This record gives sequence, structure tokens and C-alpha cells, in this order.
Amino acid sequence: MSKIPVIEIFGPTIQGEGAVIGVKTMFVRTYGCDYRCGWCDSAFTWDGSAKDKVQLMEPEAILNELLDLAGDNFDCVTISGGNPALIGESMADFVKLLHERGIQAAIETQGSRWQDWFYDIDVLTISPKPPSSGMVTDWEKLDDIINRLRLAGKAAHSLKVVVFNEEDFAYARNVHRRYPEIPMYLQPGNEDVTEPGDISARLLGRLEWLFNLVIADPAMNRVRVLPQLHALIWHNKRGK
Amino acid sequence: MSKIPVIEIFGPTIQGEGAVIGVKTMFVRTYGCDYRCGWCDSAFTWDGSAKDKVQLMEPEAILNELLDLAGDNFDCVTISGGNPALIGESMADFVKLLHERGIQAAIETQGSRWQDWFYDIDVLTISPKPPSSGMVTDWEKLDDIINRLRLAGKAAHSLKVVVFNEEDFAYARNVHRRYPEIPMYLQPGNEDVTEPGDISARLLGRLEWLFNLVIADPAMNRVRVLPQLHALIWHNKRGK
Repeated sequence: MSKIPVIEIFGPTIQGEGAVIGVKTMFVRTYGCDYRCGWCDSAFTWDGSAKDKVQLMEPEAILNELLDLAGDNFDCVTISGGNPALIGESMADFVKLLHERGIQAAIETQGSRWQDWFYDIDVLTISPKPPSSGMVTDWEKLDDIINRLRLAGKAAHSLKVVVFNEEDFAYARNVHRRYPEIPMYLQPGNEDVTEPGDISARLLGRLEWLFNLVIADPAMNRVRVLPQLHALIWHNKRGK
Repeated sequence: MSKIPVIEIFGPTIQGEGAVIGVKTMFVRTYGCDYRCGWCDSAFTWDGSAKDKVQLMEPEAILNELLDLAGDNFDCVTISGGNPALIGESMADFVKLLHERGIQAAIETQGSRWQDWFYDIDVLTISPKPPSSGMVTDWEKLDDIINRLRLAGKAAHSLKVVVFNEEDFAYARNVHRRYPEIPMYLQPGNEDVTEPGDISARLLGRLEWLFNLVIADPAMNRVRVLPQLHALIWHNKRGK
């Protein structure tokens, strides 16, 4: 059985963002990304700084570590990265193992790569990156991913765009106009992911700013604006 | 056409809590309640202090005021109270008017009264009140409401319990065990709804407390814990 490059396993904690905000979850963070976002809050998954902490793990071993950590105290596992969509068959096997135990699989990916196991994900969040990231969206690729999911008509999927500035907001509007029927989440960006101490006042200020942009814009009547609850509570601490 | 007792109409703003947290919405607040919760954040809807501000309005007049306030800058109207379920035929008419314009109707009620128009609500939140409220849940009535919705199989409904202390948390566990298939939201209570100024640090402290209770409890693997975003941003200000 092929292996998954894992850099962090932690929980149970509360999912702080997106479509299942507020739900108890375990986290499995995979190593490796095809992007290099300037403001990435998990740059250790691709910048080499934590390369010595990567473990190549079989799906069964990941499940065992989750069970060791939390017993029966979770029904959801969030697979994050990096970009977990870089991983093929071994991720399909891991998701199958979770489902055999009645555990939900939630995943977030930027929409730059397709994997057939997307069809099996319970909560699939596609999060294309806005201009402030420094990345360029491959719209043809994103269209292809959205269309495959649309045709399958079964994956619970949503879009999420992190917004740092007005240019990002305009990008989010374009994404929403391009895929109007897909539930869309906006999230204010965390402008300093290394600042120590309590950053909640800064983050709430950015949430209010984004609320006001959405409130004023009739093209955004159906999007949802959500903070990162984990960052409001646990700030920039890793593993929460 | 019969009339609706209205005490506040405002928006557009962002829905701060529950199943559609983060979505842009208008608010219509009805007057009158069959409950007297000790910690009610809208006691002016029933304690007589704002009785002179109540207007008896026809559904068409409410819709016109919403359109005057916001034009086409909303797709959702949240009907809150007081207890909007005290209102019969005129509320059915109002919801019909909204739907004719493609506007969603969201409503929150404590589950003490049934109305046939519940079937037509797009986002129906049933929020039974825990012991700290001083109210006593009529379980037979609540069962009846949940069962009618279950049999209809079409209303998008969820349960929400506000939690102030461990006794409330035990109550929420009971509600979740009684209706396990219904999406369930927990929300930390705001212990001082008149405190002026920035109350976000206090509210985030209570959110962390509730996160930790849920994280530790395998019976709560599927509930969702959410703050009141509007209170984090706009504090105890009315009309936001």
C-alpha cells in the first residue's frame, strides 16, 4: 500500500472555518504543495523548514494514530496541507478507512489538481487563491474540477476565498459569478501569521471590514463571510 | 389582511449566528413572547419598555420598508422576536410575499408553538431554552413540532441551544440525544447584554470554554459550536 507524507496529526479540536465551521474534528496535515502563497499560514508544509518532521505513513497507521490520540471522541477528520490533492491512491485508501468506521472526511484544496477520490469526500472545500497570494489561477483547471463535481452531483462542495484587500474581493466576486450555484465562503486573511500573543482584535477588525464590503455589494447577497474561529481563540499557535 | 406587530426592521447586516451564520440578511423583529428568559437579549420585545414603538403592519408594508431600506441588496430576511410563532395567517402571507420575489425567509423560535407556515420557511431554527433561562421546556410540544417537520421532510431546520453553564450543557446533550438526526448548534450565552463598549474578549473566553466542553465529550461529536459574530463585532448595540 502506498504512503502519505504527513507532517502533523492533531486534535480533537474545533474546525475554525468554512462550510463546517464549529464542528469537532481531527486534523491530518500532508506535506507538499504546488503553490507558494506569500501569506500561507502553513508554509512549513512546503518551505523545507520542517522537512525532517515529515513521516511517510500508511493509511492504516494514520488511522491508528488518530484513534490513539482521541479514541471515539471524533466523527470527522479534516485533511489539510499543503495541497492534499497532490496525493493519489493512498489518500483514496485513507478516506475508505475513515468511512468504514463512520468517520467523515473533510478536505481543503486550492483547485489546481483533480483526484478521483474527490467524489468520496464528505465536505470538499475548493479554495482558489486571490491575487495577494502571488499565485495565478488556472481557470481551465478549476472549471474542469467544478464541472466534474457538478456532473457527479453528489459531493458536498463549497468554494472559499481568503480576502486580504479590495483586489482579492474583486477576484472573489469573479469566482462567485463564474460558479453562482456553489455555496461560497469569504474569509478575511490573517496578515501576520507569526505575531505572538492575542491577535483577536486585529482579526475582528478585518472581519468587520469584510462584512462591510459584502453588506454594500448586491452581487454578494448569497456569499457567507466567516472568521477563523481557531485564530480568534488560539491565535497563531500551531497544532490547534 | 391581518397585521403583524413589528418592533424593529433593520439591515442589511450579517447574520451572526446559527445555521446561516455569515450570510447577508435583513431583520424583522416581531413584538410579543410567551417566554420571559432571564438573560433575553431582546427583552424590549416583551417587557413593555418599548411598547410605544410597536407598529401593526400589513405584510405588504413590511416588504415595502425592507425594499426602501435596502433595494436589491439582500436575498434573505430573518424574522426574529420575541416569538414570531405567536403570529398566524399574516406571517404566512408575509413569507409568501418574500418568496414571490425570490427572497429567503429565515426564522428563529423556541419551539413552544406550532404554525403551519413553518413548512414554508427556508431556514427554520428551533431554539429550546436551557435551565438558566428560567423557562421550562414543554417536551411534548417540542416533540410534536419536530415530528411534523420530520414527516414533511422538506423544511431546512436545525436546533440551537444557548449555553451559559454546565447545567445548560447537560440540557443541550439531552436535546441532541432526543433528536440526534437534526443538525445542532451550540452558542455560548452573553452574560451581560447591557455592558457598554467592547465585549469581544469576554465573549471569546466563553467560546473557548464551550469549545473545551464539546471537545472533551464524545456525545457531542456532531454538534457545532458557534459564537454570535454580530456581538463580537458590534457588541451590545441594538439594530445590528
